[in-house]
Amino acid sequence: MTLEEMGKSARNASFILSSAGTGLKNATLERISCDIIKNSDYILAQNQKDITVARQAGITEALIDRLMLTKARIDGMAEGILKVAALEDPTAKVDSGWVRPNGLRIFKARVPLGVIGIIYEARPNVTVDAAALCLKSGNVCILRGGKEAINSNLALVSIMRSSLQSIGLPQDCVQILEDTSRETARELMRLNKYLDVLIPRGGVSLIRSVVENSTVPVIETGIGNCHVYIDKAADLEMGANIIFNAKTSRPSVCNAAETLLVHEAIAAEFLPRAKKLLDTKNVELRGCAKTCAILGENIKLATQEDWVTEYNDYILAIKVVENIDEAIKHINTFGSRHSEAIVTESYTNSEKFLQQIDAAAVYVNASTRFTDGEEFGFGAEIGISTQKLHARGPMGLAELTTIKYLVYGSGQTR
Amino acid sequence: MTLEEMGKSARNASFILSSAGTGLKNATLERISCDIIKNSDYILAQNQKDITVARQAGITEALIDRLMLTKARIDGMAEGILKVAALEDPTAKVDSGWVRPNGLRIFKARVPLGVIGIIYEARPNVTVDAAALCLKSGNVCILRGGKEAINSNLALVSIMRSSLQSIGLPQDCVQILEDTSRETARELMRLNKYLDVLIPRGGVSLIRSVVENSTVPVIETGIGNCHVYIDKAADLEMGANIIFNAKTSRPSVCNAAETLLVHEAIAAEFLPRAKKLLDTKNVELRGCAKTCAILGENIKLATQEDWVTEYNDYILAIKVVENIDEAIKHINTFGSRHSEAIVTESYTNSEKFLQQIDAAAVYVNASTRFTDGEEFGFGAEIGISTQKLHARGPMGLAELTTIKYLVYGSGQTR
Repeated sequence: MTLEEMGKSARNASFILSSAGTGLKNATLERISCDIIKNSDYILAQNQKDITVARQAGITEALIDRLMLTKARIDGMAEGILKVAALEDPTAKVDSGWVRPNGLRIFKARVPLGVIGIIYEARPNVTVDAAALCLKSGNVCILRGGKEAINSNLALVSIMRSSLQSIGLPQDCVQILEDTSRETARELMRLNKYLDVLIPRGGVSLIRSVVENSTVPVIETGIGNCHVYIDKAADLEMGANIIFNAKTSRPSVCNAAETLLVHEAIAAEFLPRAKKLLDTKNVELRGCAKTCAILGENIKLATQEDWVTEYNDYILAIKVVENIDEAIKHINTFGSRHSEAIVTESYTNSEKFLQQIDAAAVYVNASTRFTDGEEFGFGAEIGISTQKLHARGPMGLAELTTIKYLVYGSGQTR
Repeated sequence: MTLEEMGKSARNASFILSSAGTGLKNATLERISCDIIKNSDYILAQNQKDITVARQAGITEALIDRLMLTKARIDGMAEGILKVAALEDPTAKVDSGWVRPNGLRIFKARVPLGVIGIIYEARPNVTVDAAALCLKSGNVCILRGGKEAINSNLALVSIMRSSLQSIGLPQDCVQILEDTSRETARELMRLNKYLDVLIPRGGVSLIRSVVENSTVPVIETGIGNCHVYIDKAADLEMGANIIFNAKTSRPSVCNAAETLLVHEAIAAEFLPRAKKLLDTKNVELRGCAKTCAILGENIKLATQEDWVTEYNDYILAIKVVENIDEAIKHINTFGSRHSEAIVTESYTNSEKFLQQIDAAAVYVNASTRFTDGEEFGFGAEIGISTQKLHARGPMGLAELTTIKYLVYGSGQTR
């Protein structure tokens, strides 16, 4: 099938899927979950092909670990699908309704977006996870995974398509690009006639490429240059715990902290305390001149580049600031508007920070690591939006819907 | 100033404006309204320059009418601003809040989008209207109007900037590109670092160009290929009134109907009746073979092209369909997902149409012409979104906001 044909078929499938009730959609997800378990051996065999190719290509063990499926990981996937089935149906909802003076009754109803394109990298679990979230919200998906996982992805998609067919829904509710070339990805980014939205899930360069090249509306996800600011009035023990957690609990994710800002009045007391904790995880520190003066010679001097870098690693930039205003300005200048935290006992400063920081999630006395669909209580997450349009912060099922105005008249003309 | 400098300055202004309270924003709008009235003579003189250039360039009188300002039109603008001031502040709102098991208290607050780019055509009233809506919702705007209205636009913006300054807000809350070249417009479309969203307001080619070229998130507006379907069970008098209204009350707008679909069982009775009404406005009819057979030789035969055309004129395509399913399929294939209407007394068919049609607004027994911010009761309108992301249908002030999660903790780490 050409991409044009895939799009057309996806749109036709979306008319059927959007009319499917919650019961049918849940039954489909349960069937898929079951079929994935049943076909574990097949999935593992196909995954092994990917692993073999990856090893031959000399890919790092860290990446191979992301690519590799095990029986336990497949069970986890299947369980994840059941969790999605258990969530509330976001399209079984009317946001509001009102009556106009001319008698028109207007209802603002939630409906699926339609056809969603998802471009992602080498993790095969995204294939199942994304498809399940799309199905639950009544959306058809066209997936484009990384070439490293192509055999695993094709196996997973073929199982899901069989499940769809056996339950009486169009197979084309879930589609995947077999051709993982850049050219085909670019074509997908311009399939405006059939795609309602495109969601990239992956690293900075993937997301940049989609934003640069797509004419289909994009939801930008997952870039995070997050800060923790330790105010003059902070509980220093809490501050040290929070920056330690925000930096080291999982440095590779977008809600990890990259820069620590410290009020100058408490810097001399706080920084050595924080360093002691951070040293237990061998975090490399890169400080401004004042930081270096306090922490001594074994600290690297930070450059401008450090203030804008998302390390995704055990590296932390540190800056001593004169006051909260300088901290806010630094964050609003260099941050990526993802997640920002202040540690303070000052009521006034906490509110000032909450109001003036421009980010998806702003924290007082808590780690930036909580910006996450599960942690926010959404039950599932398709990604974390770092743009302001449509969705901001963790996106759950509700963010995979749009609205439709249903207008009931009795002959009104204008 | 370079565009980069304008963007930077806009972003700085947005931090101040987003913290301005409702009272200050309303006072600003009232000041602008007053200053526009006071400077009417200046505005008229600058507008006259545009009119003179336009006449020399041989522009049509219809376009000159769109460009021309009069004392009454200026008063109308000033009054429009006061109406915007009287609307509810969309950022003075928290959508929801909840407490997590770990004690984190999360509030989902409404905040301004930030910096909005608006690219529009020759109507100078859009300059004031768009700026007022942006100011009320706490957003900074960078305007790019058509070259035909440049003198009028510069005059209006300079007045608004003076008003802002006199009230103590940054002048750069409202900015306009003096350079109306295509190159600068393209540059604006790629100003991702400073622009949060771009809204094109104008004709099809303007909107296409923005969608094609912009890397900044776009809200697509205003393309409407709308249908009215007269069901077998329709009240035929109501049906005739509705298609007459939907086609002729203002053919140039996006919510006007372009194609009439008629159930074959009532076509022979309905079509002559509808034609009689449409003839009073000299509407050109282009029908399918069955329509032509019923209405006779003076009806043009419609081509495939007619099903996809937004005439914006006194022209109507007509197709006789076998049943409601064919009507729904036709609309979902050829429509632009804007506004679609069914006329029927059948409960089952009304609900089927409402559920299966993929459009921003779906009507039963009412004209498509009601898809409009004022008519929906939003009090103001920045445009009608024909995409599904962020906003769909008429966009009021609420659609110029995004959310920010405010998270109150007590030392939580993950």
